[in-house]
Amino acid sequence: MHPTPNFPPEALAPLLEKYRQFIREEIFPIDLNVVQGPFKSYLPRLHDLRTKSKQLGLFAPHLSKADGGVGLNLVQFAQVSEILGQSPIGHYVFNCAAPDIGNMELLHLFGTEDQKSTWLKPLQQGEIRSCFAMTEPALAGSNPVHLATTAVREGDEFVISGHKWFTTAADGAKFTIVMAVTNPEAESPYQRASMILVPLDNPGYRLMRNIPIMGEAGEDYLSHGEVKFENCRVPVSNLIGKEGQGFALAQERLGPGRIHHCMRWIGICERVFDLMCRRAISRQLDPGKPLAEKQTIQNWIAESRAEIKASRLMVMDTAQKMQELGAKAVREDISTIKFFVADVLMKVIDRAIQVHGALGITDDTLLSFWYRHERGARIYDGPDEVHKSALARSILKSFTEK
Amino acid sequence: MHPTPNFPPEALAPLLEKYRQFIREEIFPIDLNVVQGPFKSYLPRLHDLRTKSKQLGLFAPHLSKADGGVGLNLVQFAQVSEILGQSPIGHYVFNCAAPDIGNMELLHLFGTEDQKSTWLKPLQQGEIRSCFAMTEPALAGSNPVHLATTAVREGDEFVISGHKWFTTAADGAKFTIVMAVTNPEAESPYQRASMILVPLDNPGYRLMRNIPIMGEAGEDYLSHGEVKFENCRVPVSNLIGKEGQGFALAQERLGPGRIHHCMRWIGICERVFDLMCRRAISRQLDPGKPLAEKQTIQNWIAESRAEIKASRLMVMDTAQKMQELGAKAVREDISTIKFFVADVLMKVIDRAIQVHGALGITDDTLLSFWYRHERGARIYDGPDEVHKSALARSILKSFTEK
Amino acid sequence: MHPTPNFPPEALAPLLEKYRQFIREEIFPIDLNVVQGPFKSYLPRLHDLRTKSKQLGLFAPHLSKADGGVGLNLVQFAQVSEILGQSPIGHYVFNCAAPDIGNMELLHLFGTEDQKSTWLKPLQQGEIRSCFAMTEPALAGSNPVHLATTAVREGDEFVISGHKWFTTAADGAKFTIVMAVTNPEAESPYQRASMILVPLDNPGYRLMRNIPIMGEAGEDYLSHGEVKFENCRVPVSNLIGKEGQGFALAQERLGPGRIHHCMRWIGICERVFDLMCRRAISRQLDPGKPLAEKQTIQNWIAESRAEIKASRLMVMDTAQKMQELGAKAVREDISTIKFFVADVLMKVIDRAIQVHGALGITDDTLLSFWYRHERGARIYDGPDEVHKSALARSILKSFTEK
Amino acid sequence: MHPTPNFPPEALAPLLEKYRQFIREEIFPIDLNVVQGPFKSYLPRLHDLRTKSKQLGLFAPHLSKADGGVGLNLVQFAQVSEILGQSPIGHYVFNCAAPDIGNMELLHLFGTEDQKSTWLKPLQQGEIRSCFAMTEPALAGSNPVHLATTAVREGDEFVISGHKWFTTAADGAKFTIVMAVTNPEAESPYQRASMILVPLDNPGYRLMRNIPIMGEAGEDYLSHGEVKFENCRVPVSNLIGKEGQGFALAQERLGPGRIHHCMRWIGICERVFDLMCRRAISRQLDPGKPLAEKQTIQNWIAESRAEIKASRLMVMDTAQKMQELGAKAVREDISTIKFFVADVLMKVIDRAIQVHGALGITDDTLLSFWYRHERGARIYDGPDEVHKSALARSILKSFTEK
Repeated sequence: MHPTPNFPPEALAPLLEKYRQFIREEIFPIDLNVVQGPFKSYLPRLHDLRTKSKQLGLFAPHLSKADGGVGLNLVQFAQVSEILGQSPIGHYVFNCAAPDIGNMELLHLFGTEDQKSTWLKPLQQGEIRSCFAMTEPALAGSNPVHLATTAVREGDEFVISGHKWFTTAADGAKFTIVMAVTNPEAESPYQRASMILVPLDNPGYRLMRNIPIMGEAGEDYLSHGEVKFENCRVPVSNLIGKEGQGFALAQERLGPGRIHHCMRWIGICERVFDLMCRRAISRQLDPGKPLAEKQTIQNWIAESRAEIKASRLMVMDTAQKMQELGAKAVREDISTIKFFVADVLMKVIDRAIQVHGALGITDDTLLSFWYRHERGARIYDGPDEVHKSALARSILKSFTEK
Repeated sequence: MHPTPNFPPEALAPLLEKYRQFIREEIFPIDLNVVQGPFKSYLPRLHDLRTKSKQLGLFAPHLSKADGGVGLNLVQFAQVSEILGQSPIGHYVFNCAAPDIGNMELLHLFGTEDQKSTWLKPLQQGEIRSCFAMTEPALAGSNPVHLATTAVREGDEFVISGHKWFTTAADGAKFTIVMAVTNPEAESPYQRASMILVPLDNPGYRLMRNIPIMGEAGEDYLSHGEVKFENCRVPVSNLIGKEGQGFALAQERLGPGRIHHCMRWIGICERVFDLMCRRAISRQLDPGKPLAEKQTIQNWIAESRAEIKASRLMVMDTAQKMQELGAKAVREDISTIKFFVADVLMKVIDRAIQVHGALGITDDTLLSFWYRHERGARIYDGPDEVHKSALARSILKSFTEK
Repeated sequence: MHPTPNFPPEALAPLLEKYRQFIREEIFPIDLNVVQGPFKSYLPRLHDLRTKSKQLGLFAPHLSKADGGVGLNLVQFAQVSEILGQSPIGHYVFNCAAPDIGNMELLHLFGTEDQKSTWLKPLQQGEIRSCFAMTEPALAGSNPVHLATTAVREGDEFVISGHKWFTTAADGAKFTIVMAVTNPEAESPYQRASMILVPLDNPGYRLMRNIPIMGEAGEDYLSHGEVKFENCRVPVSNLIGKEGQGFALAQERLGPGRIHHCMRWIGICERVFDLMCRRAISRQLDPGKPLAEKQTIQNWIAESRAEIKASRLMVMDTAQKMQELGAKAVREDISTIKFFVADVLMKVIDRAIQVHGALGITDDTLLSFWYRHERGARIYDGPDEVHKSALARSILKSFTEK
Repeated sequence: MHPTPNFPPEALAPLLEKYRQFIREEIFPIDLNVVQGPFKSYLPRLHDLRTKSKQLGLFAPHLSKADGGVGLNLVQFAQVSEILGQSPIGHYVFNCAAPDIGNMELLHLFGTEDQKSTWLKPLQQGEIRSCFAMTEPALAGSNPVHLATTAVREGDEFVISGHKWFTTAADGAKFTIVMAVTNPEAESPYQRASMILVPLDNPGYRLMRNIPIMGEAGEDYLSHGEVKFENCRVPVSNLIGKEGQGFALAQERLGPGRIHHCMRWIGICERVFDLMCRRAISRQLDPGKPLAEKQTIQNWIAESRAEIKASRLMVMDTAQKMQELGAKAVREDISTIKFFVADVLMKVIDRAIQVHGALGITDDTLLSFWYRHERGARIYDGPDEVHKSALARSILKSFTEK
């Protein structure tokens, strides 16, 4: 997604192996504890890991070398992303986690020089975190045309008023990018909103709560904020791109974002699959009779392997096309992988829980964390139903035109 | 389950209506708060509700009038159970929640006079709570033949040693009934264990933790304990039934217990179905375009209605047969409803979450609570796979004999 | 469905046993041959069976004794219907097969005296067969408002023009009842069509073909005709009921008709389940290792048993309600059983085929016949999707009104 | 599969386009008629098409140019195979249909010079057809270790005795390759059988019947024979490969065979998908309201597209690996695609039928043909259950070894 990815293809395989080793040796031993929290108590340890990752040349895989990253292109990064996805804190450690990664892309592509030096640079270096305020509780997120949040121009300022939630990682972030209606009279509903950068020490901004989600409110990076903008004033220079471009930029942001999510989900699937197989061979029903001998367990393992493989091939195929032809050319593919992989993810997690029996519903493994916090995968960035309809209508349109 | 249920059949319909009214007016307004906890802070309020339920003649529906209850038979109680199941605290308020209800049955049927006056009586009146220690972390719960916990007789005492978990509601309970091997040399593995009552102020007993399950450890009634018995000494008079009868009693206990669970699950389904329908008609995708107009949503509503109806008819049919013919005659039916209804439950909850979108994964509705805490329904009291195999083998046996 | 069913309830159990014995001893030995055809070559043998069934007092279970039947009410007949459904020719032998049974009901309730003596009487006695011409190839059957077939009044005659298909058992029938638009100007589209009786020796009627369906055109009772009405003139006295009542009568006809279908499907399920279990215990993978030991097979058997049981309870519950409260009161229930049982039927057949391996796809068992000829169950009398939407909208309406 | 495929990669795209054009213009217009049969009446027309395909350089895509083919390698041929799979007679016309293609491979790799000149050559040129006799009615095909057919050596002859079925296309074939036990005492059950070529004018061979499958016995290429070998004598020089190599050769034969089947199934999926979409946009529920607007239909289209895409990527990935690393390296992949794609195939066909309504179950479209004749896809060459278990056990083995 960065204009000049410059990582040599022939060096990819050893690089991937380094990521695998790092995550296995440095991250797997602590990630269950980290998600059990409190997250903030682990910040020093996570900071150390980031330092180490920089020393090893692994930090910020998606950024160009000039920006302090590894310089991977979309297809290369997708492969790293699967590896990092095996841990709930993988992307965080390497500073390529949502929503920061999306904000980096936005600012890189559309930010002013000033925005870049003030916000993008420290974000790229992992010195600050950011968030993205789009979804609103009162309106269906699946129809982004409807936004109640407004940004009214008064002199050199936008005055923002609105109520957002699912502002991921707002707790502890330094700035947010907020989607607000600036041009309510624009003819097309797709040209009414803009993206505006809001520093979070602004007195008109308030983090109301970290929303309790599936049993825990979480904190810091592992949280989703409900936030208010009340008479929140920012200079007009905080606009990102142009007025009315909000949806266009959001689409731009979501395209690769869905690739990232999907590859992360596949990483989760692989870790979960590993847990499932290990459990199957170690759990004895009778002495010498492991669960693995049960045909139902075998069915789940076989079906999971098939579905994970199908998912990876589809996402990589989409990434390849997107890299070659741009985001517009793969709109159908993006919808396809979004609902297909999210469904596989939930099925694989569910089977692994069942294989674990009572242990599977405790918080003593990562299964519970993902069962709960990835249920949203079928909802955010467009629920399954919206993507299926969009894909089908696009296909049917081509038939109508035949 | 009590020998002389004595509630007049013709009075059932108005009684059910009273339960419906109580739960709607007194319990629905607070139950989401109660499960958000801390549970203990709600104990006074819940105590008041119990008092009120006694005044209205609704308390302890499953107990005979002589024991301070309503006097319902199994089939009548099943219908009440569905109503109470609509709230996570329904059964608790009316003192007919697991594991207390199972322990009441056990002690009623097999307790000594002394056990009854000391433990059963206050349990029936809701003055104390109890728990049941059976599952062990080291051994597959689906094969109850394997128990590592032992109770060795020394003089007039049993010395109990063992490690149990998923001891529901251990936190705050006054006694537990523990399943322990007393006769390791018995020929049949089904005759090795016994049930022993252990007061929880025993110094040899320790509640290690409330197990964090699906994001929360909970407390008191809403918790599942991990417990240890170390040199835990109780008088032999604490034996329930006879030595070696542990499994026989557990089967006795599980039969109606599964009816109770299934009817509770159907109650959950109905509440969830109600939430789903209300959301479908109130959530607008576009002005005047509610979710309810979407055919996918309609499919989920129709399929859920069909599956819930099927579940209820099957469980009621099983309850009727069990009441008439005893638990043994319905072993196939019990396996059938166990896996069928648990599956329906999870499907209905999952659909309702999807209909709620982002709200569905927050803890702002009960959906998240049930999505998390009923995932165990497909595991406890025998996982789906065990019940399916048991049912099929029983059916196939009849074909072999033909 | 007949006004004065008069079969004594206490005699039902032995009657059902008689049906079971008859079908097992007289019909199972020949039904595979009969469906392999040619059907007409078996007519004499089938005639003998009818005679025998009359002698045993089993003929026409749905008709009153006065009409030469057994006198069962809807609920009693439903139980017989399941038994007969175990064979593709069960209902035929006892003269209670669609479409004749629906036509008998129609004429019984709405026929003129003349229609009754000329057509109903021989139909009841099994001397003639009939058919029902409703579905049209050019218009979606799921929206019966649209009919292109017209019946224009000219003097004392209707002149019928139109093209119908899926006119079940037209081949060999003596008359059809045709649905045709008589009142194109009626305000409500539901009041435009009428039902008209057409003797099939009418020169304006033509059986174009027995439609090849799933590999065979069949013949006689086991066929579905494509028919044409061209300048087909019948006296106005052939009208059934009143002009414009076509849809009302069709609804009347479909209500119990769907109960009959569902019970027949459950009968199929039971026969198929029996075949599946027998195959599981007899087919050896290795010497002494029957298929029945495979957990996947056990899962299918358990799931099938659960789903069949659920189906039966739901259909019987609906039949009971319909008998007590009439067809209107069970419209939601009818939709529910229609899609639920059709789905179960296809799943059970599919599993049984898989258990049979290569044999399952041959015509050497009945599985292939039902796999092919019951695929329509999810389509005729309203496809799954229509019933699901109808049910959901009806439910949601009650929420809107709350 | 041929040692020296020699088709230039850069010429593939235009070649594929030629196949697409040929099948669209020459085959689609007649294939429904051909499968409606009688097949033999179309032999002259099919012969003409073969001639035309030779003129266009499209005949026998899998054979080297030296053998009169196009010279495609496995990966190239897989892409052609998808195109041809869109018609039930596609592979036949281009002389690359099972079972001939498998026999060509066998003889090419393991045949003697004499076998090649006598049998392989005319087979490659499409002058004769062949069949393959392996499955036996009395023994589970999923466990090929068990064979009752024997070939006893007497002097210079094998005397073959046995009963086979599902000998595809036996009707009209000139020779069969039969799998028979030649070394019953071999230690490993995998080394007991051999493959022997039997000319079908042998008096000891008898085609008992074309098995009626899913409603039709078919004939010639479109049939599956039940055959008997009784005192069937052939010279020992008819042995293919060495004695006891039967299973090894069968595995060799099945590897690429499963790729061919899977790509053919994907071709079917694409044709069926096309029919489904065309029907969705052309069928009106109400004037101006096509089926395509229904969300359920859209779901099916989206899910089908996703699953077909996943299937293709997985099969092509497997073909690529097999071409590079050989059949052994892709055993897990082969099992994966076998059950995954067969399942997708049946789901896509089923949805398309439902979209077509009553028309979908007639023989007026190809849907009925494939619904019936591809149900076997989940059974032949190893049922789903066998492949799932095999895959899972192979995966679990790697975990045990960790």
